[in-house]
Amino acid sequence: MSSRTVIRGGLVITAADEIHADVLIEDGRIAALAASGTPAAEAFTAERTIDATGKYVIPGGVDGHTHMEMPFGGTYASDTFETGTRAAAWGGTTTIVDFAIQSVGGSLREGLDAWHAKAEGHCSIDYGFHMIVSDVNEETLKEMDLLVEEGVTSFKQFMAYPGVFYSDDGQILRAMQRAADNGGLIMMHAENGIAIDVLVEQALARGETDPRYHGEVRKALLEAEATHRAIRLAQVAGAPLYVVHVSAREAVAELARARDEGLPVFGETCPQYLFLSTDNLAEPDFEGAKYVCSTPLRPKDHQAALWKGLRTNDLQVVSTDHCPFCFSGQKELGRGDFSKIPNGMPGVENRMDLLHQAVVDGHISRRRWIEIACATPARMFGMYPTKGTIAPGADADVVIYDPHAEQVLSAETHHMNVDYSAYEGRRVTGRVETVLSRGEPVITEREYTGRPGHGVYTPRSTCQYLN
Amino acid sequence: MSSRTVIRGGLVITAADEIHADVLIEDGRIAALAASGTPAAEAFTAERTIDATGKYVIPGGVDGHTHMEMPFGGTYASDTFETGTRAAAWGGTTTIVDFAIQSVGGSLREGLDAWHAKAEGHCSIDYGFHMIVSDVNEETLKEMDLLVEEGVTSFKQFMAYPGVFYSDDGQILRAMQRAADNGGLIMMHAENGIAIDVLVEQALARGETDPRYHGEVRKALLEAEATHRAIRLAQVAGAPLYVVHVSAREAVAELARARDEGLPVFGETCPQYLFLSTDNLAEPDFEGAKYVCSTPLRPKDHQAALWKGLRTNDLQVVSTDHCPFCFSGQKELGRGDFSKIPNGMPGVENRMDLLHQAVVDGHISRRRWIEIACATPARMFGMYPTKGTIAPGADADVVIYDPHAEQVLSAETHHMNVDYSAYEGRRVTGRVETVLSRGEPVITEREYTGRPGHGVYTPRSTCQYLN
Amino acid sequence: MSSRTVIRGGLVITAADEIHADVLIEDGRIAALAASGTPAAEAFTAERTIDATGKYVIPGGVDGHTHMEMPFGGTYASDTFETGTRAAAWGGTTTIVDFAIQSVGGSLREGLDAWHAKAEGHCSIDYGFHMIVSDVNEETLKEMDLLVEEGVTSFKQFMAYPGVFYSDDGQILRAMQRAADNGGLIMMHAENGIAIDVLVEQALARGETDPRYHGEVRKALLEAEATHRAIRLAQVAGAPLYVVHVSAREAVAELARARDEGLPVFGETCPQYLFLSTDNLAEPDFEGAKYVCSTPLRPKDHQAALWKGLRTNDLQVVSTDHCPFCFSGQKELGRGDFSKIPNGMPGVENRMDLLHQAVVDGHISRRRWIEIACATPARMFGMYPTKGTIAPGADADVVIYDPHAEQVLSAETHHMNVDYSAYEGRRVTGRVETVLSRGEPVITEREYTGRPGHGVYTPRSTCQYLN
Amino acid sequence: MSSRTVIRGGLVITAADEIHADVLIEDGRIAALAASGTPAAEAFTAERTIDATGKYVIPGGVDGHTHMEMPFGGTYASDTFETGTRAAAWGGTTTIVDFAIQSVGGSLREGLDAWHAKAEGHCSIDYGFHMIVSDVNEETLKEMDLLVEEGVTSFKQFMAYPGVFYSDDGQILRAMQRAADNGGLIMMHAENGIAIDVLVEQALARGETDPRYHGEVRKALLEAEATHRAIRLAQVAGAPLYVVHVSAREAVAELARARDEGLPVFGETCPQYLFLSTDNLAEPDFEGAKYVCSTPLRPKDHQAALWKGLRTNDLQVVSTDHCPFCFSGQKELGRGDFSKIPNGMPGVENRMDLLHQAVVDGHISRRRWIEIACATPARMFGMYPTKGTIAPGADADVVIYDPHAEQVLSAETHHMNVDYSAYEGRRVTGRVETVLSRGEPVITEREYTGRPGHGVYTPRSTCQYLN
Repeated sequence: MSSRTVIRGGLVITAADEIHADVLIEDGRIAALAASGTPAAEAFTAERTIDATGKYVIPGGVDGHTHMEMPFGGTYASDTFETGTRAAAWGGTTTIVDFAIQSVGGSLREGLDAWHAKAEGHCSIDYGFHMIVSDVNEETLKEMDLLVEEGVTSFKQFMAYPGVFYSDDGQILRAMQRAADNGGLIMMHAENGIAIDVLVEQALARGETDPRYHGEVRKALLEAEATHRAIRLAQVAGAPLYVVHVSAREAVAELARARDEGLPVFGETCPQYLFLSTDNLAEPDFEGAKYVCSTPLRPKDHQAALWKGLRTNDLQVVSTDHCPFCFSGQKELGRGDFSKIPNGMPGVENRMDLLHQAVVDGHISRRRWIEIACATPARMFGMYPTKGTIAPGADADVVIYDPHAEQVLSAETHHMNVDYSAYEGRRVTGRVETVLSRGEPVITEREYTGRPGHGVYTPRSTCQYLN
Repeated sequence: MSSRTVIRGGLVITAADEIHADVLIEDGRIAALAASGTPAAEAFTAERTIDATGKYVIPGGVDGHTHMEMPFGGTYASDTFETGTRAAAWGGTTTIVDFAIQSVGGSLREGLDAWHAKAEGHCSIDYGFHMIVSDVNEETLKEMDLLVEEGVTSFKQFMAYPGVFYSDDGQILRAMQRAADNGGLIMMHAENGIAIDVLVEQALARGETDPRYHGEVRKALLEAEATHRAIRLAQVAGAPLYVVHVSAREAVAELARARDEGLPVFGETCPQYLFLSTDNLAEPDFEGAKYVCSTPLRPKDHQAALWKGLRTNDLQVVSTDHCPFCFSGQKELGRGDFSKIPNGMPGVENRMDLLHQAVVDGHISRRRWIEIACATPARMFGMYPTKGTIAPGADADVVIYDPHAEQVLSAETHHMNVDYSAYEGRRVTGRVETVLSRGEPVITEREYTGRPGHGVYTPRSTCQYLN
Repeated sequence: MSSRTVIRGGLVITAADEIHADVLIEDGRIAALAASGTPAAEAFTAERTIDATGKYVIPGGVDGHTHMEMPFGGTYASDTFETGTRAAAWGGTTTIVDFAIQSVGGSLREGLDAWHAKAEGHCSIDYGFHMIVSDVNEETLKEMDLLVEEGVTSFKQFMAYPGVFYSDDGQILRAMQRAADNGGLIMMHAENGIAIDVLVEQALARGETDPRYHGEVRKALLEAEATHRAIRLAQVAGAPLYVVHVSAREAVAELARARDEGLPVFGETCPQYLFLSTDNLAEPDFEGAKYVCSTPLRPKDHQAALWKGLRTNDLQVVSTDHCPFCFSGQKELGRGDFSKIPNGMPGVENRMDLLHQAVVDGHISRRRWIEIACATPARMFGMYPTKGTIAPGADADVVIYDPHAEQVLSAETHHMNVDYSAYEGRRVTGRVETVLSRGEPVITEREYTGRPGHGVYTPRSTCQYLN
Repeated sequence: MSSRTVIRGGLVITAADEIHADVLIEDGRIAALAASGTPAAEAFTAERTIDATGKYVIPGGVDGHTHMEMPFGGTYASDTFETGTRAAAWGGTTTIVDFAIQSVGGSLREGLDAWHAKAEGHCSIDYGFHMIVSDVNEETLKEMDLLVEEGVTSFKQFMAYPGVFYSDDGQILRAMQRAADNGGLIMMHAENGIAIDVLVEQALARGETDPRYHGEVRKALLEAEATHRAIRLAQVAGAPLYVVHVSAREAVAELARARDEGLPVFGETCPQYLFLSTDNLAEPDFEGAKYVCSTPLRPKDHQAALWKGLRTNDLQVVSTDHCPFCFSGQKELGRGDFSKIPNGMPGVENRMDLLHQAVVDGHISRRRWIEIACATPARMFGMYPTKGTIAPGADADVVIYDPHAEQVLSAETHHMNVDYSAYEGRRVTGRVETVLSRGEPVITEREYTGRPGHGVYTPRSTCQYLN
């Protein structure tokens, strides 16, 4: 027996189209779309009807970069998969791809199993995993092949964090060569961590311990340098490359140059780089610690380059790098030494709204909003067209979005398990009303109607954005 | 009473998606899509069913650059609107945008009326008009506003052909300023015609009269120069710019540079530049004259830059610049003086097939094929989503395309009214089987079932590709 | 019988070297240099000894761009060859290259003869001529060959001033082709005058008549555009190119790009672009008119790009474009209509001092000062090593320069025949003490000891800067 | 009592000038220059007269990059300071700057003392030292200050050769910061050795052991990458940078980009990259080993970029990287494993001749020849104007060069202590006739008249090329 839902009268927005259509859902999938008001649409029958008149009907967001319960600097990101995915749903995101971590000396398998254990049975929405590769060796390379086969098709490496996640250029090259063979996608944290650590040491020695020095030592040029280096290593390996959390104008320029050369090089930025700046890092009374993440926030004048990159498609994706640490007890670990502040910010709940605000502000179009937040991440990470679009056959991950509602972002009202909002007090136009995950209502007219365990692990194909 | 058609079992390909879906057509429009095999699809009923199993179901092609019955060099392009649009349909194209011409001293209105008269009642498929502006003056500028209001929203100017279509930089700047105000889009033939005419005169004086000298005097650098100049004039005017028939690597580089700067600058290329070269212009016995068009064919090594531009979206559109002249009696006017060879080539029937061949050859993906040949031209010229996609509400301009059929291009089998094929003997994979124009079959399993007059004038909104 | 002078104890600075040497002059030429204090130096004997202890001994300046007595806008530049060359000498310049003008419809010969007549017998220092080509035709092209043979080896064309000096791209291409053959150097006024005239007309129509609008309508982008266009035309012609009075950052970028490509493309800037800005053009009470020249002054932030260009050798020469018009009676012709303000500024007396100030300010080195002001213009315009250096065999055009003296620039003290100084009140460090022209003292310890008629016409070889 | 030599009648060529002048030498220094034939010249008297009629009189070459007796891969470069400097003199080079080496774990002082001991008393010409820094630590950084004070003002680091000379990016950054403070110049071997070692290992594992694989694994992109990285690190440190032995087109492009940005970044190339190619590396019977050096020879089409770089001054210096190993017994260590072939080639004797051939071939001008081979290296490494020019006060390091003589380069006739010539059989135009070192004849009409021990250590000032 079939369970059917029909969404009537909304403006269906995908990366490609804006159409007035009714959407028929059967058994958790989009079964059909029909032009609203036509006989074909009238013929749709369903147990449940959602009236979307005056609203947008959009694909659920795909957040390709989250870190739930991630261990960092002696503590853990404060959102569990349960709290984090619930908050994601509140923000109109219906799929996350989180990062499982290989420990140095450990196997990929152990890391992946641990993350499966953390997530399974707890998620309100669907999830997949990238794999952080901390220790490239012969075994690791073989395991990469296996992981690709079972749907973990992307591997993150770090040019920063020596002694923790850091890979040297030889390890990066080997992993890229393997990815070129097995179809995996290398994701890169591109900062010259070796050079940065020198600057950190020197800054601390000069007594520069406040959060704002975090932004000063992690120089834009050292992000650009690493971005360029990763690009050339990928070119040598014949592999595509995805650079995470691009924040510096100079790094965008390196990506643009590579893309002009026709290289399969991609870049992601995050809302914090688009909406926040070193001004926040400089907030007094250690409040700047709330904004400590890496790559760091940049001076405000970098924002224009990021918006331009999003428009010219030199940047393709906006993810959150959601990795929340409470100010109290966690961020405070770095009082007196910015290098001890856990790196990361909350945001999984705010992404879709902030990007809609960018539509309102004229930075991007509505279709581009959906493209960078839903369609491209789904395609980049091998989940298209199941995720990221509203088309017959796709999962019925659908958001009813009210483009006219106003809201004020605040820790008092958000659902992330963290004691502050990076956007406290910011007024935005647009709000999630209802969220379906595979046809099931997770948020219903701004009430949580989902359940932990509804969300399931989503194995992914290899990158679909290459051609 | 409703006339309904359903297309069953094909792979529906749009610029964004590839889905197995059945397509329901009601009253000439796409009414609904449903995932094949679902109850929703089973529920579709129709008077006519087309079986597309194993075939592609794609939007009809949109050819944004044709010249039917165009006067040039004392003769006329050999395809009328009747023969040309029939040939277009044979080739899977269901919309053309042709160029009405303002005579020097005449009004836009006179030119447009003349073209309406040529086209009306003769076309098998829908058509719109761009306006060639040959004489910028106060009256012309006012008429531009009126034309935008009535759906002629794009205006072509020439930096070549002094004394005929040529506009000087002041006229260009004025037209661009007006377009910046009224939403019109300036289309530019970007070649430095003043300099080229010097080189033509010098070449002829040296006795260099063969067709290949046409390619030598119209230098790539002079296309790049004019492209750059048009970009800067548009930047001064605050207007977007669409550069037609880009053929030189150096011109692509100028477009790429402008786009990196974030400017709203667009480029079109044509199949002849992607598949032919100066080798053809050098064919003996005056055969090279068949390939005389402007911008000219370039040495083969320019092709890679064009394909790259199409992949990086530094080029957005492939049109044909269809402007056929028979070899016998027309091209022959230039025997002994290449400058007298009528400029233009046939191609309206070959574009969709040649670009599918590019898919087969690995130059572009299937979705990109549809994007550059259907969706983007529709959006660029203000006809989206009525044209250029398969989505509920769109016109039912649909092509059933057999991706496995093989064919040999030839003047003996083509339907264009011209005595040669530029691609004579070329074997390609893929063939149009059936073509619907607003639901009506124009080509039915490779028989012409359309009629002159079915196609209607299509007023256009302003450019939809700007955001 | 030989007339001998020895200059003792100074620091001899050339483009290449800084040496403590005594300079022996015989019969108007540098005969020898010897390390100060050596027996070789002691052996020098002379009728006249100049003590240069603590001073610089530098080559006399070569100003490659002056307009004495030039007709413009119904009036004449206020310096005659007599007053202008005397002022030049006061400022440490010992050679000027002025511009003879071909009238439209006239011959090069007529123009050149007229300028010879103006100059002959009146100059205190040596002079040569460039030829402004206003009317390219077959006769003109032939005359270019003759002029090269008689030492007028450079030809200026204008992409601005339609109806006056303007050449279209075909005329430019033809002249460049001829120059490629006969070794001449094309000098280009690179502004898109056709587009600018549209903006002028529109500005005036809006009532924007003040001097500052002169700067606004002559847009940096239109200088960059013309610069690029001239470069590509020169590339087509296979000719070198010298762009005069570069003022816009974007134009410098075009030159840098061309030079990276290895093209023989050169750029000149002027002190007014390095030291003044649109702030001056905006001075109230029509005072801005004093600063009206074309290319126009730019916003201050363009200056950094010019200094950088001078350091990276993307700009090679600093000339003055000296073309003075008195504020009273001349500049005032443009009250109420900025387009009627005679274009030009005084400066022939200030160049060496302002550039020495740039040394003091750290923008350039001492050797670079001499290179851009003496050696390179001499080499660029075919007068090396006779002019522009201090080396055995060179003309004894020598300046004794006090690097520590301070002075205040002012119309009250300057020697140019113009009623204002563009640098009124500016304090600079460094001052000309004594000036020799072919060994004869023109300025002696800050007294004029020269005479009109000492200076002679200097035929020039072709450009020596090409290899 | 004074020893005097006069050189009569030659064409004196410096980086700046070409003059017909007689040169007077007193006590080992250039005392005076006088225009030939003038009374001033006639007045020169001397014990010794050299007739240079029909010859060039040029500054002795300055080779800024040699490795005499250098330990590498278990053997030593086959030229001692005695044989190497004698050969240098034969080739018209009168100053070398060799590389003293810090061992890992050792001090700079120990390394420098060892190199002083090797050189002292053995050299026919003057010499200085750069310092190879293999082990950056606090002590090393302090020693850098001391070395700058005593005339060792440049420090080489390696981004290649992990485990031997390799510095990581943090060590590089620290050394650059120190150099920014103390005026030292960082010289960089820019290849990503970490990545290259991966490729070496993989090539050997595939059985690719021949010399030509040396060129394949050391990829041009990895030279370009390291070049870019070094540039950005220098930019962060606020230090100038000198990149040694640039061989790849892509690396030249990185330098050009940095210089366009106004950064104080310099590049050196070597004759082997200008005249040889991977074709040589592929010579059969292990002969390719003769051409193994790092950076490696590149495909022939890279040469044009190097010549262009030399013309545009994106490359400033041509040194030899002279580091000879005999084919027999030394190069042969790498039979069966290209990675064991000692890296290095002979060339100190051939540089001036090969670059004169480049003048003959039209790649560069005569003055540029002297600039890149004499004047700029002298200035770059703080020896100007003592070395690198012919000017009063300079050391009388002078070469009488016959521009018309022809010679054939060959191991049979060369004077380097190595059993092969990299240019065996190559015919060149131009030959050294006589060489003076501080006025003393080292080569006299093609006989060696010098003596070991004449050459002395030359302390150097800091870089003079920065302004």
